[in-house]
Amino acid sequence: MDSYEVAVIPGDGIGVEVVDAGLSVVERAAADAGFEVETTRFDWGTEHYLDRGEMMPDDGLDRLRGFDNIFLGAVGHPEVPDHVTLHGLLLPIRKGFDQYVCKRPNVLFEGIDSPLRGYGPGDIDFVVYRENTEGEYASVGGREHRGFDHETAVQSALFTRRGTERIVRAAFRAAAEREGHLTSITKSNAQAHSMVFWDDIVAEVSTEFPSVDVERLLVDAAAMDLIRRPHEFDVVVASNLFGDILTDIGAQITGSMGLAPSGNVHPGDANPSMFEPVHGSAPDIVGDGVANPLATVLSWSMLLDDLGETAAGDALWSAVVDQLAEESAPRTPDIGGTAGTEDVVADLRSRL
Amino acid sequence: MDSYEVAVIPGDGIGVEVVDAGLSVVERAAADAGFEVETTRFDWGTEHYLDRGEMMPDDGLDRLRGFDNIFLGAVGHPEVPDHVTLHGLLLPIRKGFDQYVCKRPNVLFEGIDSPLRGYGPGDIDFVVYRENTEGEYASVGGREHRGFDHETAVQSALFTRRGTERIVRAAFRAAAEREGHLTSITKSNAQAHSMVFWDDIVAEVSTEFPSVDVERLLVDAAAMDLIRRPHEFDVVVASNLFGDILTDIGAQITGSMGLAPSGNVHPGDANPSMFEPVHGSAPDIVGDGVANPLATVLSWSMLLDDLGETAAGDALWSAVVDQLAEESAPRTPDIGGTAGTEDVVADLRSRL
Ligand SMILES: CC(C)[C@H](C(=O)O)[C@@H](O)C(=O)O
Ligand SMILES: CC(C)[C@H](C(=O)O)[C@@H](O)C(=O)O
Repeated sequence: MDSYEVAVIPGDGIGVEVVDAGLSVVERAAADAGFEVETTRFDWGTEHYLDRGEMMPDDGLDRLRGFDNIFLGAVGHPEVPDHVTLHGLLLPIRKGFDQYVCKRPNVLFEGIDSPLRGYGPGDIDFVVYRENTEGEYASVGGREHRGFDHETAVQSALFTRRGTERIVRAAFRAAAEREGHLTSITKSNAQAHSMVFWDDIVAEVSTEFPSVDVERLLVDAAAMDLIRRPHEFDVVVASNLFGDILTDIGAQITGSMGLAPSGNVHPGDANPSMFEPVHGSAPDIVGDGVANPLATVLSWSMLLDDLGETAAGDALWSAVVDQLAEESAPRTPDIGGTAGTEDVVADLRSRL
Repeated sequence: MDSYEVAVIPGDGIGVEVVDAGLSVVERAAADAGFEVETTRFDWGTEHYLDRGEMMPDDGLDRLRGFDNIFLGAVGHPEVPDHVTLHGLLLPIRKGFDQYVCKRPNVLFEGIDSPLRGYGPGDIDFVVYRENTEGEYASVGGREHRGFDHETAVQSALFTRRGTERIVRAAFRAAAEREGHLTSITKSNAQAHSMVFWDDIVAEVSTEFPSVDVERLLVDAAAMDLIRRPHEFDVVVASNLFGDILTDIGAQITGSMGLAPSGNVHPGDANPSMFEPVHGSAPDIVGDGVANPLATVLSWSMLLDDLGETAAGDALWSAVVDQLAEESAPRTPDIGGTAGTEDVVADLRSRL
């Protein structure tokens, strides 16, 4: 029997709740498909930080390196600034394992209301390929003359040819396999150094994919167009920051952050990829037992696909789709129900 | 009779159409209120550039300097890259006259449908104070090793204490005069140099405004929340880029880019301020006579308010509000009508 080793980092807040809940569903799907997922749990996160002054141990990356993939719950804690927690755990893994493709599907499922008038099931279905290792998230910059009138902070976005080409190429490849339509997001009218460079790379790489038609859209216009005409998007490629903003809009217009999965993918076998629900630690509902586990299950579906276990990945995805489509099925409060996390996963298991 | 000198730069595309149309309304409002607006027209823009290789003459800023205020139509042309046109005309004026407050009201008017389910007239009413002279739009950065594998582009965002304090203070002042609620937008979890600095300044300035309550929101969450709960926003303060993105979302959720006015304000008398509709040059509808002039008229309303002519400013604003509220009044196609630009302004004049 095939067996995969997956590192599981529940992290903070509802991350722990959805990860625990999700595991029982994943194990069932794996058993059904005839393979095993062996998970090793790492209790890293902000509790660990408050205890020991570090979000993960110094050799954290080394300890994760041998795994086939990583599953992360959420990072973030009301008592510790985000730039400490995120720079201590989430971002170092994305960068340290060169997970340069952040893949985020946005689908309006049957049974879910979009906040946008006139949009129903099936009307929204696009995927964002977000650059995940550099750009506006580079740790480049500084702050000088603290407290003086001439105090100045600089935050530098860094775009390399290698870093840009590979995410753009990954997005083109995805577009060629989907509807053949790629939207590249920039802000070239105001950021003439980085974004004109991005545009140039998109133009270069486009010659390799004659079947894909490319639309260039400024990030402000894109934010508008995701509200005005989301049905026209297929694959979107964007920098780290722009991808971050647009995928949150994508989650919102498809009904809930509680449904948005993501993969931080390092294509190839050199490093593990990491999958995580997009929603974050949601301190306001911790302990209430109502965290929505669906983004977690969908993220596991992406993880299994990535391992080549597409039948099991599909089974998880379909279980979620079926559950949402059935009016009487349990759902959590964020998507209009009254059920708890456990009810939802129990129902999912019964659908496998 | 008081008289004001206003420099008018129609610019490109429908900029020319809406500026011409708007002037007749403004002149009527001024006459009613007993003052005069003397306009001087500058035919700068992309046609000028295609003719002479420059968007405006070298001494452009000097020629504008003596005016009480500036009105701009739009900048942007399908045949010339945006970073050329914008860096040649719009951005140098914003920066050259230190117009550090970009003020953008977002109001859902009666008679206008929001694309958001459940939102009706009066439900959305907030104003964005966007930093307008530095931040992510700083001309700092470069691109090296062109065409080589190690090619790299850097785009540096620059935040100064002076630049940050003054926009934050302006926003607090506005919040104190409105509902007392200020939302500060950052991305401190990923941009630890610039945005933690921004947070610190907000915390400092907040001590001067004990009556204002401050909410800190990450830009990705803010993009979501403008779709999820736009009614809860009052005053939003944001950096140049974040303000750009969020105001476009604001325009979209309040029904149309064709209704969004803006002011690039230099508080004080040292320099003129510049007012402009947000919509841009819209090459696709140039010459059709259907450009929506309402954002222009609302921007003039803001310009007149800025000159202290608030009665005339209010009259313009009310004329637009009344027109939109009346079902049988003419409206342009972007907001669901079939009328042309001229019909709309003729109707507006008749309401003054
Ligand atoms: C938590 C934060 C650093 C992160 C990001 O900005 O990448 C999150 O918003 C996301 O989208 O995964
Ligand atoms: C045209 C462009 C440079 C400009 C900006 O980004 O500021 C526009 O989008 C705006 O919002 O006024």
